[in-house]
Amino acid sequence: MTNKNDLIKCHDRIKPFIHNTPVLTSSSINKMIGANLFFKCDNFQKMGAFKMRGAANAILQLSEDQKKRGVVTHSSGNFAQALSLAANSIGVKAYIIMPSNATEIKKLAVKGYMGELIECEPTLSAREKKSKEIQKSTGATFIHPSNDLEVILGQGTACKELLEKHSDLDYIFTPVGGGGLIAGSALAAKYFGSNCTVIGSEPFEVDDAYQSLISGKIEKNNSTNTIADGLKTELGDINFPIIKKEINEIIRVTEIEIIESMKIIWERLKIVCEPSCAVPLAAIFKEKKSFQRKKIGVIISGGNVDLSKLPF
Amino acid sequence: MTNKNDLIKCHDRIKPFIHNTPVLTSSSINKMIGANLFFKCDNFQKMGAFKMRGAANAILQLSEDQKKRGVVTHSSGNFAQALSLAANSIGVKAYIIMPSNATEIKKLAVKGYMGELIECEPTLSAREKKSKEIQKSTGATFIHPSNDLEVILGQGTACKELLEKHSDLDYIFTPVGGGGLIAGSALAAKYFGSNCTVIGSEPFEVDDAYQSLISGKIEKNNSTNTIADGLKTELGDINFPIIKKEINEIIRVTEIEIIESMKIIWERLKIVCEPSCAVPLAAIFKEKKSFQRKKIGVIISGGNVDLSKLPF
Repeated sequence: MTNKNDLIKCHDRIKPFIHNTPVLTSSSINKMIGANLFFKCDNFQKMGAFKMRGAANAILQLSEDQKKRGVVTHSSGNFAQALSLAANSIGVKAYIIMPSNATEIKKLAVKGYMGELIECEPTLSAREKKSKEIQKSTGATFIHPSNDLEVILGQGTACKELLEKHSDLDYIFTPVGGGGLIAGSALAAKYFGSNCTVIGSEPFEVDDAYQSLISGKIEKNNSTNTIADGLKTELGDINFPIIKKEINEIIRVTEIEIIESMKIIWERLKIVCEPSCAVPLAAIFKEKKSFQRKKIGVIISGGNVDLSKLPF
Repeated sequence: MTNKNDLIKCHDRIKPFIHNTPVLTSSSINKMIGANLFFKCDNFQKMGAFKMRGAANAILQLSEDQKKRGVVTHSSGNFAQALSLAANSIGVKAYIIMPSNATEIKKLAVKGYMGELIECEPTLSAREKKSKEIQKSTGATFIHPSNDLEVILGQGTACKELLEKHSDLDYIFTPVGGGGLIAGSALAAKYFGSNCTVIGSEPFEVDDAYQSLISGKIEKNNSTNTIADGLKTELGDINFPIIKKEINEIIRVTEIEIIESMKIIWERLKIVCEPSCAVPLAAIFKEKKSFQRKKIGVIISGGNVDLSKLPF
């Protein structure tokens, strides 16, 4: 269990390693919705995503002895870069296991942040096997991208910063991928909000969290056919109990709704963001009748996109 | 002639109608250049460009009688939208003359901001004739997009805000189009900077300001074959004397250099900006040896781009 003080200490701990990212508004988007939206732009975070927050906190919580032996994770997404940069900033070695079919851009980004890249067969079992090997041979500590309490607390600091600027938000919307961001946001809203409700959003195509809330146990996606590539992962046994307790609603959206909202964010907010970031806005558009005249925070989770592959 | 107090009063006057836009930094861009860059993001300004500042100031400086009769301009770019929105915000009628071949998106944007759109043949003489007609029939005051002292002062407030956050900048880079932004920035740097030098930047393809500084008189472009569509216009008799007096250097860049810098801004700063905004960064890259370890402000001038027509 965590308390308000844990989140305050976590935030103080990681502040030297992260940006307090700006909050943007758009009067045209507000008019379209009929509410006041506040976009917390963690696409401007170091290495381009909120994942930097959790990665930094997890490493800073290690003992000096653990720090000497390094950290390891397997990820093909933003957490690989986040752990590489956070480790490098703190002076710790990071071993990053990536599937051999990951794009060159992602591999280069990890190397650019001085992570030691280790390739493996593109299966989950190969990743996990390789990770165990690295832990054994180096003594490095495994850090999970989302199912780790220190990571969850770190991710919650985006929401804490947003509430420090706008303390009277009625709602905060996040996307749901592996569950770290929404769990951390739920804790931050409980500790620092004033009757602020966190609502999740997911593509219909990967609605495992929505299904998990219904069944009461962690559900898996049968397929992951979504443009929101950051949201293909599933919940874990550490974040799911928090989500189950704190989150009452996850709104699902179609792929077309995601692309439309992504275009609105790019055109109106003038920011570069990943498809995953558009899922919360798509959810607000979808259910806008329920949110008239409300003050709504939206976590813009990351900005690492391939500009040559835009959906518009 | 203007003084520091004119710019302070101008800023106070327009504050209710503009955003004090964020300043972003990127450690990766800083590393590439070897200097510290501070990007003043007026792509996040209302209607998506710094032009909102000058338009608001010019309208607010009209007499009550003039305000009743409205304002008129001819523009196919951001100033058409800026004057429409500024006029609407202040409660003044705006007549916007646009060439009939302007894109539908631009026409819709003007209408969306409640400007009265008047189309004419796509020649400068037709625009000017139509503008005279409107002035005569309505009594509206003509507001020039860049060659107007109130507009110049308004544009200078972006630089003033930047210096209020970072008072020790060694340089501030702006693009040069019609000359309003660089003239206003030069005044702001003189009044509010501490030994801060403003440097202009232009595409080789439309280097009229560079040529004008050499010849000492306003030069025109023979062709305007550049991706930086906001910079095709020429200097005027009100802004050129300021530029001649205050600006010593304009750096020219190629089209390829503009596109490369635009991609770096989108990928590293995670912002949507017009090609014109990339001209200053391209200039800094080109002459980076001269700017090692310096503190450099960069005005990001606007973010109104057609996302379906990106050069990468």
